[in-house]
Amino acid sequence: MTSGYIIPIGGAEEKLRGPAILRRFVSIAGGADARICVIPTASKMPDTGERYEAIFNELGVGSAFSLPFTERADCKREDWLAQLKSATGVFMTGGNQLRLSTLLGGTPVADMIRDRNEHDGLHVAGTSAGASIMAQHMIAYGNEGPTPRADMVTLAPGLGLTERAIIDQHFRQRNRLGRLMTAISYNPRLIGIGLDEDTAAFISPSRDLEVVGSGAITIVDPQDLEFSSMDSANRHQPVSLINIRLHVLVEGGHFNMITREARPAQLATSS
Amino acid sequence: MTSGYIIPIGGAEEKLRGPAILRRFVSIAGGADARICVIPTASKMPDTGERYEAIFNELGVGSAFSLPFTERADCKREDWLAQLKSATGVFMTGGNQLRLSTLLGGTPVADMIRDRNEHDGLHVAGTSAGASIMAQHMIAYGNEGPTPRADMVTLAPGLGLTERAIIDQHFRQRNRLGRLMTAISYNPRLIGIGLDEDTAAFISPSRDLEVVGSGAITIVDPQDLEFSSMDSANRHQPVSLINIRLHVLVEGGHFNMITREARPAQLATSS
Repeated sequence: MTSGYIIPIGGAEEKLRGPAILRRFVSIAGGADARICVIPTASKMPDTGERYEAIFNELGVGSAFSLPFTERADCKREDWLAQLKSATGVFMTGGNQLRLSTLLGGTPVADMIRDRNEHDGLHVAGTSAGASIMAQHMIAYGNEGPTPRADMVTLAPGLGLTERAIIDQHFRQRNRLGRLMTAISYNPRLIGIGLDEDTAAFISPSRDLEVVGSGAITIVDPQDLEFSSMDSANRHQPVSLINIRLHVLVEGGHFNMITREARPAQLATSS
Repeated sequence: MTSGYIIPIGGAEEKLRGPAILRRFVSIAGGADARICVIPTASKMPDTGERYEAIFNELGVGSAFSLPFTERADCKREDWLAQLKSATGVFMTGGNQLRLSTLLGGTPVADMIRDRNEHDGLHVAGTSAGASIMAQHMIAYGNEGPTPRADMVTLAPGLGLTERAIIDQHFRQRNRLGRLMTAISYNPRLIGIGLDEDTAAFISPSRDLEVVGSGAITIVDPQDLEFSSMDSANRHQPVSLINIRLHVLVEGGHFNMITREARPAQLATSS
């Protein structure tokens, strides 16, 4: 009984020329023996599943197939559940994370992904909406801006693959530091993970996070927070936070989600 | 290593003449041997802690003391943590649940309550805000009305004593069925528990819920949900939900949160 990786990706990952993130995911999932299940549910475009199947086949997987769950009844199909059970890796595409949570939430599909990721070595990757859905507390939507304001973010229950973090994506490109800090300010128990586009967090079963990709990952750690005014801020007003710890990590950098220690690439590789 | 009860109360519980809920809580927490720790943090009134101490003393507890955490630094005080460690029951008062989450979240106090409730038989009760904070997913605030609308509820991470339910309070009095259904519609994995005033859910370690008090508890169970339009609803628009299962339970009624079976008082007591 071993746990698998969880691999949130910030969206817009390189797919053709040197797709470092997808290649690394395929390698972890078994390379030529990998069986990748693509879940295109977040997307409304009909060819999203096929498109990723082609990409994964190009990368030399054993097999790639998509399961296009489009209504809740689909999530009880025995044939599809059997396919999901045979996968070594799951890849959830971009789109709308609320489509994933409303369609898969509370069904055998969500239960199987969570259970197999925790106990059966299933590796789970997701990009954009597929990244947001992974955590217990999911950012459903919100507003742009670099500083926190009350009411700028809406949380919803996610898939629950980790209870330690809130994950945000398109982070630099859509100016989302403010909404991630707002999400953290409600209850400073969680770690914020902000993923730039074409950037992934490879989070090992022991909860060591490694950065892969061309952008940065911003870690918002409230472990030393002395004060949050979220409980008294009025709607749309700025929120005061005293003593947030921030890390910006790039390719090869690490963050340990248990000890909460960050290491840059050089130190990480020499240790 | 045994788990304790969790006892969310809908607010405005009877305190003087026949305080059935508080008396039952005291009995579970040890009666004459009970050591009740009152946490008045949600309230801004300075006498809330003392007031509940007097009520619990009147009910014949071994001891009752309050720990008035008013800033995050208080949550690291060794003397107060030692007192919390000696408690057989915790009682969290009403006020603002965001004050509880922003002040206690991620501190040794929150960790100790969660850990002792799960492993060390600590019973945890809370009324109004103190009820809302208990769940992993907490209703921070929202709007009134009987039917669900997008954006009518704001969720935040709570204390995490249960991951199976979202808890709402002052339920009948403040017309909150709509916001509870909205909260459930994001991800139909959770059970909604709506507590009328002077009404409590005594949730056993095996997750059997029993109703105590003068009002009703409304259970919103989405296990058979066929459709939720939450992912496509625009702000403030109504949300469509197909096949929500609803139970209204009164004094003596039971709901099993694992099997999701409801039983009225007569059947529950005869079995």
